[in-house]
Amino acid sequence: MTIASQSIEIADIQSAAARIAGHAHVTPVLQSRTINALAGADLHFKCENFQRVGAFKFRGACNAVWSLPEALTSHGVVTHSSGNHGAALALAASTRGIPAHVIVPQGAVRSKVEAIRAYGATVHRCAANIAAREETAEAVRLQTGANLVHPYADVRVIAGQGTAAMELIAESGPLDVLIAPVGGGGLISGCAIAAAALAPDCKVIAAEPAGAADTFESLQRGSRVGPFVPDTICDGLRTLIGAINFEILRKHGVEVLTVDDDETVAAMRLIWQRMKIIVEPSAAIVLAAVMKQRDRFSGLRVGLILSGGNVDLDALPWSSSSTPTQQEAVA
Amino acid sequence: MTIASQSIEIADIQSAAARIAGHAHVTPVLQSRTINALAGADLHFKCENFQRVGAFKFRGACNAVWSLPEALTSHGVVTHSSGNHGAALALAASTRGIPAHVIVPQGAVRSKVEAIRAYGATVHRCAANIAAREETAEAVRLQTGANLVHPYADVRVIAGQGTAAMELIAESGPLDVLIAPVGGGGLISGCAIAAAALAPDCKVIAAEPAGAADTFESLQRGSRVGPFVPDTICDGLRTLIGAINFEILRKHGVEVLTVDDDETVAAMRLIWQRMKIIVEPSAAIVLAAVMKQRDRFSGLRVGLILSGGNVDLDALPWSSSSTPTQQEAVA
Repeated sequence: MTIASQSIEIADIQSAAARIAGHAHVTPVLQSRTINALAGADLHFKCENFQRVGAFKFRGACNAVWSLPEALTSHGVVTHSSGNHGAALALAASTRGIPAHVIVPQGAVRSKVEAIRAYGATVHRCAANIAAREETAEAVRLQTGANLVHPYADVRVIAGQGTAAMELIAESGPLDVLIAPVGGGGLISGCAIAAAALAPDCKVIAAEPAGAADTFESLQRGSRVGPFVPDTICDGLRTLIGAINFEILRKHGVEVLTVDDDETVAAMRLIWQRMKIIVEPSAAIVLAAVMKQRDRFSGLRVGLILSGGNVDLDALPWSSSSTPTQQEAVA
Repeated sequence: MTIASQSIEIADIQSAAARIAGHAHVTPVLQSRTINALAGADLHFKCENFQRVGAFKFRGACNAVWSLPEALTSHGVVTHSSGNHGAALALAASTRGIPAHVIVPQGAVRSKVEAIRAYGATVHRCAANIAAREETAEAVRLQTGANLVHPYADVRVIAGQGTAAMELIAESGPLDVLIAPVGGGGLISGCAIAAAALAPDCKVIAAEPAGAADTFESLQRGSRVGPFVPDTICDGLRTLIGAINFEILRKHGVEVLTVDDDETVAAMRLIWQRMKIIVEPSAAIVLAAVMKQRDRFSGLRVGLILSGGNVDLDALPWSSSSTPTQQEAVA
């Protein structure tokens, strides 16, 4: 079963939706009058920060776990991830009661590793480089017989992430534009497939940090650029786009808008203040893309996937003498 | 029309709900598996942080504005408030297209005053003491003929706030306990009336800061205590309970649980981290009350009113070099 032999259709996303129902949340779509007024557009925010494990990643992981033939379940699943995908796969495996192995590089955030263990997964440590991660994952796979669930270059994962766009379109009705962030490309490629089938007039746009704009460059030149050193606070978007993900974006004519970190931080602040929800920089980048080109989106119905809400709140001043109190009002 | 001559029935709350429909949001009720597990109870959070102006206050203000006989509307409404009620009344008046006058003491937070003006209200400044506020409001009332809408000691306001509990009970079904914060008592007294009629077996509890526990003391001794100097970060709860509000709490046997600020901050942090929503300390106090007496609430279905989400986010480190990035995972 190679990637090249596989294509993903809307039926795969619909099957994924049925498979993850009862495990994943159908997250709410929120609107803000104030932000609509500031943007001059009709913005529909799909709140994956409210998804289990705090990010859309649970959708794809859950679909992969529940796609496994029963005969293979006893060997469990394996992945390498220092981010949300590891926690998502660990939790997804626990919903089916099967083993999960997560390869975590040295130096990963301790609370994240603890979360993966708390969901019942076995954590395997490796050196902090991509070669070590892949080698360790392969070794664990051979030892255990576990099924590899790649964070984004996996058709089951892509189909699962596409359910976010499917739900958004079902709830918000016809959209002129759909915007999602791009890192490895699991979310945006699933969204592109869903939109093409369910809202064919909807333009699909990927928001990418200017400091990690490999997808933008790859689409420009028509082939994937090589490894690069990312420079962005959007820690979920530092990954090189996957091969299958790149092909899906090309096929569906997805456009990439690059955004500077300062613009992303301003958008994140606006969302916290006005919508009273916590989103991470990698999520806020979609609003930053709209605010950067207000004229282009003026008057349009725009769907935006707020991909997650996992920020390190330990950095905030949590004490009764320093905690910020009431000030901003919203309408 | 004196307070003593007035009583509030469930019909008043139902009328208020009809009156504010289309202006106020029916806010969502959220649950968190993680917080349920930590609390050992089934917690239903009514998210008034998502209400317009970021707090439940809009309900009461809106009901008062839309209760005015048509003949009185041209003179508008007046109140004194340095907090959310001023902004709420200003916005409510704008929904009916009538004038609003808000008396704001010197030293009030600038962004709050700007918000009141942005909603179209006329701001009148006065000295920063309660006598000056009441005198100035009375002078404006006599000059303009505007109708006084007190922040909490007003039957229209109480009935409006009660719609929050009505919606929560309608959505969540039978509750064993309903908890709301108490400051001036507009919210908790409206909730007590709603619960008595709609969920008569539901125990109603007020959460009050230990550093502003006048309601607790007043109920203990059977009469309202006098003015005091509050010492709490819960800036929405520093007010002395109103006379009519106190009588309603007595009549309905509402119990007060006092909470230390450190407990409130811990609860606020938990809500931000696990629910990905922003609530202010005056809201988080309801969860702190549960966590303080876990044994008592163990296994119960508890409704909690998260009263608002207006915190001063300017105090946070908003720059692309210092903004916190991804860490915590939630289930």
